[in-house]
Amino acid sequence: MTTPTTREACADLDAADPLAPLREEFVLPEGTIYLDGNSLGPLPRAARERVRRMVDEEWGQGLIRSWNDAGWFDKPAVLGERVAPVIGAEPSSVVVCDSTSINLFKVFTAALALRPGRKVVVAERGSFPTDLYMMEGATGLLDGYQRRLIGDGGPSLDEALDDEVAVVVLSHVDYRTGALHDMAAVTERIQRHGALVVWDLCHSAGALPIHLARCNADFAVGCTYKYLNGGPGSPAFVYVAPRHQDAARQPLSGWHGHADPFAFASDYQPATGIDRFRCGTPQLLSYAPLEEALELWRHVDLDAVRAKSVRMTSLFVDLVDRQCTGFGVEVASPRDPDARGSQVALRHESSYPVMQALIDRNAIGDFRAPDLMRFGFTPLYLRYVDVWDAVVVLRDVLSSEVWRSERYATRDAVT
Amino acid sequence: MTTPTTREACADLDAADPLAPLREEFVLPEGTIYLDGNSLGPLPRAARERVRRMVDEEWGQGLIRSWNDAGWFDKPAVLGERVAPVIGAEPSSVVVCDSTSINLFKVFTAALALRPGRKVVVAERGSFPTDLYMMEGATGLLDGYQRRLIGDGGPSLDEALDDEVAVVVLSHVDYRTGALHDMAAVTERIQRHGALVVWDLCHSAGALPIHLARCNADFAVGCTYKYLNGGPGSPAFVYVAPRHQDAARQPLSGWHGHADPFAFASDYQPATGIDRFRCGTPQLLSYAPLEEALELWRHVDLDAVRAKSVRMTSLFVDLVDRQCTGFGVEVASPRDPDARGSQVALRHESSYPVMQALIDRNAIGDFRAPDLMRFGFTPLYLRYVDVWDAVVVLRDVLSSEVWRSERYATRDAVT
Repeated sequence: MTTPTTREACADLDAADPLAPLREEFVLPEGTIYLDGNSLGPLPRAARERVRRMVDEEWGQGLIRSWNDAGWFDKPAVLGERVAPVIGAEPSSVVVCDSTSINLFKVFTAALALRPGRKVVVAERGSFPTDLYMMEGATGLLDGYQRRLIGDGGPSLDEALDDEVAVVVLSHVDYRTGALHDMAAVTERIQRHGALVVWDLCHSAGALPIHLARCNADFAVGCTYKYLNGGPGSPAFVYVAPRHQDAARQPLSGWHGHADPFAFASDYQPATGIDRFRCGTPQLLSYAPLEEALELWRHVDLDAVRAKSVRMTSLFVDLVDRQCTGFGVEVASPRDPDARGSQVALRHESSYPVMQALIDRNAIGDFRAPDLMRFGFTPLYLRYVDVWDAVVVLRDVLSSEVWRSERYATRDAVT
Repeated sequence: MTTPTTREACADLDAADPLAPLREEFVLPEGTIYLDGNSLGPLPRAARERVRRMVDEEWGQGLIRSWNDAGWFDKPAVLGERVAPVIGAEPSSVVVCDSTSINLFKVFTAALALRPGRKVVVAERGSFPTDLYMMEGATGLLDGYQRRLIGDGGPSLDEALDDEVAVVVLSHVDYRTGALHDMAAVTERIQRHGALVVWDLCHSAGALPIHLARCNADFAVGCTYKYLNGGPGSPAFVYVAPRHQDAARQPLSGWHGHADPFAFASDYQPATGIDRFRCGTPQLLSYAPLEEALELWRHVDLDAVRAKSVRMTSLFVDLVDRQCTGFGVEVASPRDPDARGSQVALRHESSYPVMQALIDRNAIGDFRAPDLMRFGFTPLYLRYVDVWDAVVVLRDVLSSEVWRSERYATRDAVT
């Protein structure tokens, strides 16, 4: 593909885009170019009615009966079955519950127990930090574990791997740069050393085809509020390979993971299969929009998503190269699209105020400390003309130096 | 107070009830006597609009900006401040997040670490089981802990207490019988032995005045979807006494509990104060109805709630005694109202089909294995005439033996 050199050429790509009709399924604020769907996906139109129904009918009228009549108890399993095909997982290997952090704790401790005697855990220094924090919390309860951090100037994965390594936790796509691991190859290298791998899919689920089963992955976790569009803080998912399910035990052994929760026994007996990775009562209202968001994915071809994603990120990189040179921006993401997820990071010494100025002009990305601007390209609802328009705004902000205005200097509490 | 002997006398009590106007704040299905608010509170009217606003405006239009602009990041702390007065907690000692099970894990492990060297944990055999399961999960990660179960035929609390006990986990109100602990006296007895107490307030928060601070409690957890009416699976709360907050560390150390979450540091540094008991990204949509539900509690006098609750449970017990003798039911709750929460349990050898027949007649309580029917009395929206009417239905079901019908025999998956 040659890069379009005009907005009209971008519009032609949109006209030929097989995914274009999906844009109508989402609420997108008028005049906004939303390049932060890699952080919080937009509202699926159908979710509004689903939420209203859960509130007014299931809760308001059904009350306690809805645990049975509306299938509340089974939501984590039912939505798990809908997530499974999106991440290439086997049936009955995914449940939707709790947060990514909590689920990481579950699979990480379960994995450690499957590799007794091995006392080294490996993670990327550039992991999304909560993964590191949860591992720290878990190993802090246990005796004698040592952590090896790889990447970002430290040793490589291959340098860190040896027969003392129990578990490796990796982000499929780097939350900062969008760098993408080759899941099959990396899994194989880890397992060759007898270690287990936990994949964090937060920045890849819904962004590109994932084949957990085909890659022989051991465990995975991920969130549903980014590319899957489940709503703010919608419940996370957890995957356990079928071959581990009988032996895997996790310590957040709440009653919803019990073999017979309504027997009210005083001793814990884990449910068979993936259900033992559930814990307490699910926050049901947060499942309602996710239910509709996942319904959309039934009809989406992930190869088409990936093809459009690669085209969009490549278009963005090319346009930045052409139109924004000389303004101190640098592409921080891999230039090879095969090594990149569905986001592009730009580095600038004043990334924070530049991003604030962009947001002020309705081109919404986000900032990640210390110096990155992130732009997410989400093929379900973005158009090629949005990519074009975003670069026009970016060039304008950079060339006008409007970002030097004092109003963009103050950091919000949350960014 | 003398027990009313006619429905008219009950209506007179309603007419004089200072809490009566609050009933208008809730959606209650026409013709239903809802005696299961101790399991799932009904929908507060204001919650519907609050949910719509979060979905359509904060998520739909605000998108990622709502983390700042709509105060999403601070919801766990802001709602914690609203829960605090309901449970007699100090300011800045409560956060709302995750589930009761997860929060119990946090405070239980934090408490154990504050009592190094002590290797015994104490809990009630009749605890709501998830408390026992989470303790089992936590001690399973640690070395050498022994569990002593008290009550239900086992040793008493006093028999179990010695200077090896690190932590005691107790339900303020028993989920089955409604038996109520004297929080001040029991806390004092536990602390005299140098142990720490964790109170589970699931069945007391919003049902009666609680004075965590005045009772010198160490830790507490509880849910918000029962008497607090936050919605199905609404997020739980966690309390840590200010004197423990600096030293307490919990292992579910996710990024929202970090001192500086947006610095994205690779090492965990706990936030000061109660915020370190947060973990991952909150399931925000589930906070929306709770926000309105808690708003109602600002204007509620908990002593008035307790007075009405005592009157209602006493009325129910008296009416059952008078009208249902000879049908095999027995009051399983304490007859002394001072020793009872806001629920009454009846024992019957066929409690399951009897309860199904009641529900079929729109008198909704619930069943708890093996043989209890539970009836919750929630003064915010129930009337004395509802108590009267419920006993009329109960007597009818028992005397007609309609519960013997085959249609009431089949157990639902969830009850």
